[in-house]
Amino acid sequence: MAKAGAIRIGVLGASGYTGADLIRLAACHPEIEIGVLAASSHAGKPLAEVFPHLTFLDAPELVKAEDADWSSCDAVFSGLPHGTAQDLIAQLPKHLRIIDMSADFRLRDVETYRRWYGREHIAQDLLKQAVYGLSEHYVEQIADARLVACPGCYPTAVLMALLPLAKSKLIEVKDLIIDAKSGTTGAGRSLKQNLLFAEAGEGLSPYSFASHRHAPEMEQEIGLASGEEIVLNFTPYLIPMSRGELVTCYVRLKNGASAGDLRAVIEAAYREKPFVRLAAPGVLPATQMVRGSNYCLINVFEDRVPGRAIVIATIDNLVKGSAGQALQNFNLMFGLPETTGLQQLPLFP
Amino acid sequence: MAKAGAIRIGVLGASGYTGADLIRLAACHPEIEIGVLAASSHAGKPLAEVFPHLTFLDAPELVKAEDADWSSCDAVFSGLPHGTAQDLIAQLPKHLRIIDMSADFRLRDVETYRRWYGREHIAQDLLKQAVYGLSEHYVEQIADARLVACPGCYPTAVLMALLPLAKSKLIEVKDLIIDAKSGTTGAGRSLKQNLLFAEAGEGLSPYSFASHRHAPEMEQEIGLASGEEIVLNFTPYLIPMSRGELVTCYVRLKNGASAGDLRAVIEAAYREKPFVRLAAPGVLPATQMVRGSNYCLINVFEDRVPGRAIVIATIDNLVKGSAGQALQNFNLMFGLPETTGLQQLPLFP
Amino acid sequence: MAKAGAIRIGVLGASGYTGADLIRLAACHPEIEIGVLAASSHAGKPLAEVFPHLTFLDAPELVKAEDADWSSCDAVFSGLPHGTAQDLIAQLPKHLRIIDMSADFRLRDVETYRRWYGREHIAQDLLKQAVYGLSEHYVEQIADARLVACPGCYPTAVLMALLPLAKSKLIEVKDLIIDAKSGTTGAGRSLKQNLLFAEAGEGLSPYSFASHRHAPEMEQEIGLASGEEIVLNFTPYLIPMSRGELVTCYVRLKNGASAGDLRAVIEAAYREKPFVRLAAPGVLPATQMVRGSNYCLINVFEDRVPGRAIVIATIDNLVKGSAGQALQNFNLMFGLPETTGLQQLPLFP
Amino acid sequence: MAKAGAIRIGVLGASGYTGADLIRLAACHPEIEIGVLAASSHAGKPLAEVFPHLTFLDAPELVKAEDADWSSCDAVFSGLPHGTAQDLIAQLPKHLRIIDMSADFRLRDVETYRRWYGREHIAQDLLKQAVYGLSEHYVEQIADARLVACPGCYPTAVLMALLPLAKSKLIEVKDLIIDAKSGTTGAGRSLKQNLLFAEAGEGLSPYSFASHRHAPEMEQEIGLASGEEIVLNFTPYLIPMSRGELVTCYVRLKNGASAGDLRAVIEAAYREKPFVRLAAPGVLPATQMVRGSNYCLINVFEDRVPGRAIVIATIDNLVKGSAGQALQNFNLMFGLPETTGLQQLPLFP
Repeated sequence: MAKAGAIRIGVLGASGYTGADLIRLAACHPEIEIGVLAASSHAGKPLAEVFPHLTFLDAPELVKAEDADWSSCDAVFSGLPHGTAQDLIAQLPKHLRIIDMSADFRLRDVETYRRWYGREHIAQDLLKQAVYGLSEHYVEQIADARLVACPGCYPTAVLMALLPLAKSKLIEVKDLIIDAKSGTTGAGRSLKQNLLFAEAGEGLSPYSFASHRHAPEMEQEIGLASGEEIVLNFTPYLIPMSRGELVTCYVRLKNGASAGDLRAVIEAAYREKPFVRLAAPGVLPATQMVRGSNYCLINVFEDRVPGRAIVIATIDNLVKGSAGQALQNFNLMFGLPETTGLQQLPLFP
Repeated sequence: MAKAGAIRIGVLGASGYTGADLIRLAACHPEIEIGVLAASSHAGKPLAEVFPHLTFLDAPELVKAEDADWSSCDAVFSGLPHGTAQDLIAQLPKHLRIIDMSADFRLRDVETYRRWYGREHIAQDLLKQAVYGLSEHYVEQIADARLVACPGCYPTAVLMALLPLAKSKLIEVKDLIIDAKSGTTGAGRSLKQNLLFAEAGEGLSPYSFASHRHAPEMEQEIGLASGEEIVLNFTPYLIPMSRGELVTCYVRLKNGASAGDLRAVIEAAYREKPFVRLAAPGVLPATQMVRGSNYCLINVFEDRVPGRAIVIATIDNLVKGSAGQALQNFNLMFGLPETTGLQQLPLFP
Repeated sequence: MAKAGAIRIGVLGASGYTGADLIRLAACHPEIEIGVLAASSHAGKPLAEVFPHLTFLDAPELVKAEDADWSSCDAVFSGLPHGTAQDLIAQLPKHLRIIDMSADFRLRDVETYRRWYGREHIAQDLLKQAVYGLSEHYVEQIADARLVACPGCYPTAVLMALLPLAKSKLIEVKDLIIDAKSGTTGAGRSLKQNLLFAEAGEGLSPYSFASHRHAPEMEQEIGLASGEEIVLNFTPYLIPMSRGELVTCYVRLKNGASAGDLRAVIEAAYREKPFVRLAAPGVLPATQMVRGSNYCLINVFEDRVPGRAIVIATIDNLVKGSAGQALQNFNLMFGLPETTGLQQLPLFP
Repeated sequence: MAKAGAIRIGVLGASGYTGADLIRLAACHPEIEIGVLAASSHAGKPLAEVFPHLTFLDAPELVKAEDADWSSCDAVFSGLPHGTAQDLIAQLPKHLRIIDMSADFRLRDVETYRRWYGREHIAQDLLKQAVYGLSEHYVEQIADARLVACPGCYPTAVLMALLPLAKSKLIEVKDLIIDAKSGTTGAGRSLKQNLLFAEAGEGLSPYSFASHRHAPEMEQEIGLASGEEIVLNFTPYLIPMSRGELVTCYVRLKNGASAGDLRAVIEAAYREKPFVRLAAPGVLPATQMVRGSNYCLINVFEDRVPGRAIVIATIDNLVKGSAGQALQNFNLMFGLPETTGLQQLPLFP
């Protein structure tokens, strides 16, 4: 893995799906060398034992986070679950720049954090420094940040679609209905009955009704963009597929806007952005169009109900929704071209 | 197949999925004898060649519709596509009672039919006699009908959820958003690229945006129930599963109603109905809960957005959404207990 | 659930997949009344909480096995895992007839049991009385048995294909290669990483290589039928589907036999058997042809390698491979027609 | 797409799955510029209309093969079906080097071709020059070839496992049983009923029994390697997954060999080969371990039947089994490092 002049990274939570996808992408990134892989419950094992598809990578052995040698590392990616993430990140040496894929540093308000996550935030100083890592929308802040909090997978898709519109004042942000579908990796690698093949397969189910923790994150960002305090409808479903996320935002138009006006706003917002694209008129985004890639595809449609429009966005939840966006942020932080190591095309079929 | 005193049926369109599921259910119905199986493009073949899973059934050979001997039949089920259905049904002998699973006799207005189906209706007399076969809502009319037009799969689920509410005046019927997900059998057995396993699998895609032909059917029935002319949002998705349908209706409350009020209305509407059930508070309907069965499961949820509620319904699109409801209508038409031959429990996992 | 004159049953292990499928089938069996549902870790819950698809059934609440009132029951089905099964079955009142779906009473030799299951058998007296419940092959013994040990799912498919051939001396039983594919429910409802949708989906993997516990069971029965002591190759794979099992037996012919001779033997063996069928020449059995049903479909093919033939059998592992065969045995034990409550046709698509 | 000093390629059959995967990989290959995309039935369309996941690629428009401007191209990849491939390849300008992914130039014997493909070969001169493109085994010949015939997907996996063993004389090549499982893309993008999601999903089926056209290809190569004329058993199955192939070779040992001896032979054969790897002892290859990558993973196991062993190999049928191996051959032909553009790690989950 030793590359001359490379930036050396460590990964916390290397035994989870986001960790694995980060490793998969980082291993092919031309400027990265993987120095540390931490996964406490699997310390001492080769990576290939935990993720056999990474057999072909010459990777360091898994270690406990507390045993890691961070001295020669420049950056750390964390794929830990919330709670654990803040505990460990708070203890990392100061020279490290941190890209966190958990929920721990996304909510700017500690009270909101406590209400939705049911615990006190124990790293509030860090929280204040953290930058919300929605790459296309916070470029400069990310470039300068020590700690970047990558958005949740759903918020990434939803905010790519709605942030430009919220800023434009063309939609009623207090009446947003978001019907959101995700593959099962959105729930991580946890051993839950409803995630078994025999239960999640050949069927679909809503979950976390009116209580999904990604709601406050979207409300925070749409609130900031629009200048209004909002509550939104967010209704997620578990779909029998591994990867992929598609969100449908039912929006009420205001100020005389049409669906075409929304198209124009979104087109302008991402014209220079390599990973976010407005689809051609009438083309229906589908998760198959972005699987395995860092792309986000958006489109806008007229609604048959007058005064309404529909905005659809799709991403791969593990790439643009997590590990890919994390690497994109890393590129921004280290002054590399944004697309470095991220130009794989979607895998279809 | 000969059963003493049985009612003898024929099936038009025996080589499609709805035809096959009708045969599967009818074969175990204690009062039915299958007399004729018509499938013009496969005439002369044994049924097992077209549907190997029906190898175990001692069924009549497939014939052309025009060669069928209807004289000893009492009833005909049609699983033909729209257009073909009206052509063939118009020619059937008058002694036959007809349960049509196509779209040809669902829309009461010939102009609406022409606009959405792009052709003139050639059996307008029959259309006038036809009864809309939403079993739980038109019991008496179905019992007396010669021709029953079974609802589409989506309308079945949506109308089970919304008809009682539309009648109750507790929701704003002019602002309905319906996000609807279906397995691939909803599209029938047609050879289309997007229905290939390699394309429909591991991904999800919206389709027929703002143009799905089930929309006018729902608008007709909700319009009748509420006394208002409406246009609704209906957004369907293709989900990587074979069977199952789940519809989420985002409704605006009116007249001071709460989600609890909606629950009470739905509970009352189906208290005596064996196949439609309001789930316990908080239980999230999932397609796995009804797969392979004639049941419909409904629930109501508060929305985080004030003044709104969410109503979810799920069915198996080939059973309650097609062949099962057709048999239920047959039972009503022939004076049999509604549940005869339809009490199979869902197949899970 | 109360039916006049019904036979009253109890179910041990009602929270597992075989338990659930037994309940699904028993609920529609005209002579059965479900009296007791035991599932120790879920005692006190309604069945619908553990299996929401059984919401539509008016079932007794789950109880601990030791709290069950067996006095009014006539028979008990056990869907417990091995080990636990023998412990609990040994304590059941003597008036109960028992149909066990675990592995505990399948191996006639306690030493073989100890070697493969890594524990002493604690109910060796019961073991001596137990009858191997391969319905079509042990009709009389099953009818008279107090305790029937239903075969494993793989042995059911393999033995249906090979027992008649082993008896016929037309194949070399010491050179059997069995390549066997199963859906994920074959592994039960256990929370294992490799059974997660994200890991078992979109891929296939061999497992339990040369160590699967169904091997000694097949060796026992083929050994008995052929009079030879054998060791066989049994290579199972996990397939991304919920239900279904297909076994391919590569056999060396002997005594001048041809594939046609094997067909004749199998045809003769099952001519009078309602659930086992030899497919028409050239028809390739597929799991889709039996899904959800108690049928077993077999066919024989010539091999391109001279002196060899191929025998394929397919079943639904949860029905003919478990709960369905258990009910078939129950029918035999209680003098009912073998097919009672089991004539559902396969569910396809 | 213009890259300084790049090698310019064309693709025939750009609307099929192998064409698409070739484009996906070629687009990220640092030395390749895509000059021509031919797909006769879609000529005039943008690529993204035929493959929406390639929306993000700035690709040339699709043209008819006969309208393509080959003058500035250096190499052509063909993803056409057999028959069409030879017709079009025979007409290509002589300066082009050709990597064919069809079956047309794989069989060295025209008579065998005629027997298995049911037509005369019309480009027998080209056939004589063609090199069988099993990259790891014909390195020098491929480097010098004008026309490389890439192996079928199954032969790639089987021959990687068996060629070294056939040469070593440690296995009986006249008694090979190959049980082979593939995802549905192995059948291409053709519109067939058995490839529909509703039919191929939730089930598995054998196909092309004793008649699959990959059999003579394997027999040819194993025959050459062993110096014996052979007939083998090849039994393929359609598995409900899109990509991936796993072959299990049941082999009879000879000359006193053990499974360990086979391991040693395979280990030695691929020690220096970047894409083919012997797994650690006991590790079971699974298709998930190679999905989306050009890797081939092999392992050897003892059989419980004395004198036998089991060799398993897995590949992604569209990558190492088709487009990836084609690119690997291209690298060899143009003097580039073998791994150029092919080091993507498997996509899991």
